[in-house]
Amino acid sequence: MDIIFMKRALSLAEKGAGFVNPNPMVGSVIVKNSNIIGEGYHKFFGGNHAEIEALNSLTDTPEGSTMYVTLEPCSHHGKTPPCVNAIIKSGIKKVVVAMLDPNPLVSGSGIKILKENGIKVVTGILEEEAKKLNEIFIKYITTKLPFCLMKSAMSLDGKIATKFSDSKWITCNESREYVHKLRHKYSSIMVGVNTVLVDNPLLTVRIPEFKGLNPIRIIVDSRCRIPLDSNVVKKISHAKTLIATTKKADTKKIKTLEDKGIEVLILPSKDKRVDLNALVERLGQMGIDSVLLEGGGTLNYSAIEAGIVDKVNCFIAPKIIGGTLAKSPVEGKGVSLVKNAFLVNNMVTYKFGNDIMIEGYIGQRD
Amino acid sequence: MDIIFMKRALSLAEKGAGFVNPNPMVGSVIVKNSNIIGEGYHKFFGGNHAEIEALNSLTDTPEGSTMYVTLEPCSHHGKTPPCVNAIIKSGIKKVVVAMLDPNPLVSGSGIKILKENGIKVVTGILEEEAKKLNEIFIKYITTKLPFCLMKSAMSLDGKIATKFSDSKWITCNESREYVHKLRHKYSSIMVGVNTVLVDNPLLTVRIPEFKGLNPIRIIVDSRCRIPLDSNVVKKISHAKTLIATTKKADTKKIKTLEDKGIEVLILPSKDKRVDLNALVERLGQMGIDSVLLEGGGTLNYSAIEAGIVDKVNCFIAPKIIGGTLAKSPVEGKGVSLVKNAFLVNNMVTYKFGNDIMIEGYIGQRD
Repeated sequence: MDIIFMKRALSLAEKGAGFVNPNPMVGSVIVKNSNIIGEGYHKFFGGNHAEIEALNSLTDTPEGSTMYVTLEPCSHHGKTPPCVNAIIKSGIKKVVVAMLDPNPLVSGSGIKILKENGIKVVTGILEEEAKKLNEIFIKYITTKLPFCLMKSAMSLDGKIATKFSDSKWITCNESREYVHKLRHKYSSIMVGVNTVLVDNPLLTVRIPEFKGLNPIRIIVDSRCRIPLDSNVVKKISHAKTLIATTKKADTKKIKTLEDKGIEVLILPSKDKRVDLNALVERLGQMGIDSVLLEGGGTLNYSAIEAGIVDKVNCFIAPKIIGGTLAKSPVEGKGVSLVKNAFLVNNMVTYKFGNDIMIEGYIGQRD
Repeated sequence: MDIIFMKRALSLAEKGAGFVNPNPMVGSVIVKNSNIIGEGYHKFFGGNHAEIEALNSLTDTPEGSTMYVTLEPCSHHGKTPPCVNAIIKSGIKKVVVAMLDPNPLVSGSGIKILKENGIKVVTGILEEEAKKLNEIFIKYITTKLPFCLMKSAMSLDGKIATKFSDSKWITCNESREYVHKLRHKYSSIMVGVNTVLVDNPLLTVRIPEFKGLNPIRIIVDSRCRIPLDSNVVKKISHAKTLIATTKKADTKKIKTLEDKGIEVLILPSKDKRVDLNALVERLGQMGIDSVLLEGGGTLNYSAIEAGIVDKVNCFIAPKIIGGTLAKSPVEGKGVSLVKNAFLVNNMVTYKFGNDIMIEGYIGQRD
């Protein structure tokens, strides 16, 4: 039964995806005599925590009931008062927690207070699932660096475009719709200036229900070559645009971009390009907890080499494109020997229409 | 029950893989009162058909029993007498067949004779499975052209080697073992001369149980550049080597190779390369029913473009290699627009160790 109610709490939590960043997604269910008598989730950044939402939704008295919550209840005053106080006050007898607070400064303290107040606490129910759900939050709260997902879409022979840079569309509708969900879930989307030059994308979320809720668009452009008439510059009303550049960029161009409402970050350079480690550090400081990297092969390789990529979503379409000159998802300098390749852990496959998506996590090199 | 016994017959049939070519793999089970009283399969080319093997293994009298057989029993004199005669003579009452003989000249005639002799016949049980098992035979018997499987092994970013051509090993042991099973199953293995120049492979089956049962090694080498000290030339005792070349090749070199026991086919050229359609036609005439294409990007693209590839097995290792100059599985000229890509049908995934293998069938272009 614990698993069933915790699954419900996790699925409630997930509804907050894209709305709560940089907070975690949290869901909660209150159960009495095997019936759900209240449930809720953290709906948006600054809003009520899941536990409070669940308590506010009660259809029966909470005395003697059990609360299921996907993350350890907080014991500190943040934007809202501590949840443990409300739980203690409610008369709830038992709290089942999926995972502890990953913030080392407060981890375990919520549970300690509950126990001190005579509430039974069970932890670790669907812990792995809860950790996966909040992988962005866990990385961000523990490192202050954004979690980075590299997304690529290629043919079965590893091409992201034809030799003439045609890439519309390699993957099917279902895959592209999923990518738009990712764009909604992630706080920012990152591409290199070459992608702007070749594809001139809008980089917005094109799912009706999430329309207008767009991630910050980050363009890595070490010499500020971005055209002033590109979509990400012109259509600034759609979403915030941030250009990451270096001292090599023309100051007048920077001024022009800033006048258009674009934020320009002047960052240290590394191998004549934007130092990506410095960039993500800066993004973390700005409160950006997650980056969806939709780069071309050059930026993708730099990002992997810099160690900023955490996860990969590689869509593979049932097509063969061929071409010595056709681009592939990760290019750059590349490794010299197979034994030096970057490893991908826990690869699993998903199906989107006729495409296959391989998900994995970047691991240590051999 | 029909399905259970037919599954048993199919799994028996599969034991003939690599031994029966260009014959089909066939398995048979004889059942009386729900007990298997005999079973057998076609073990090697020229050997007894499965039905005869099953009849020879009977542990009870066959009168009134049911025979399950994966392929329609033959009614013609080939290397062995017609199976229908033996079935009729045995007193078997009912025959359950997975698929009809795909040979249009004889399809249905075995069943007709059985019915004319008062035997009840059921067809189509596990037909799809039986057709997949004998996809090589079906193509070969209906077109006289070999069935061609393109196998490639790449990193998650679509690289078959690093920029320095290092490729040992991208995939894991389990994947490579499966490839050796494929080498056993297929009558021939095809590579381009570049693969010989770069990797100097042996192209043999390295599974203990199949040791020495090697496919014919076909090297596509339009100008006969193959080094005389390459493994496929020197180690001719391991397996037959066949070089497909054109009139551009030096006649002295051809003579030298022939003196070493290598068969050299001089074929028409197309775009200055061996005409692959002419090559497979010739291979079909030679009784070669199947080709395992383990080419590099150039040969693979030529093969796909020529329309000789039927199926793809693409192994994907959990590694990222990168590199603008690293090779990918299909190169060559490539298509200009995504809408002109070669389509892959029925993609499914398999897991080998930590690798993922995507299988699919080459379909029509859009």
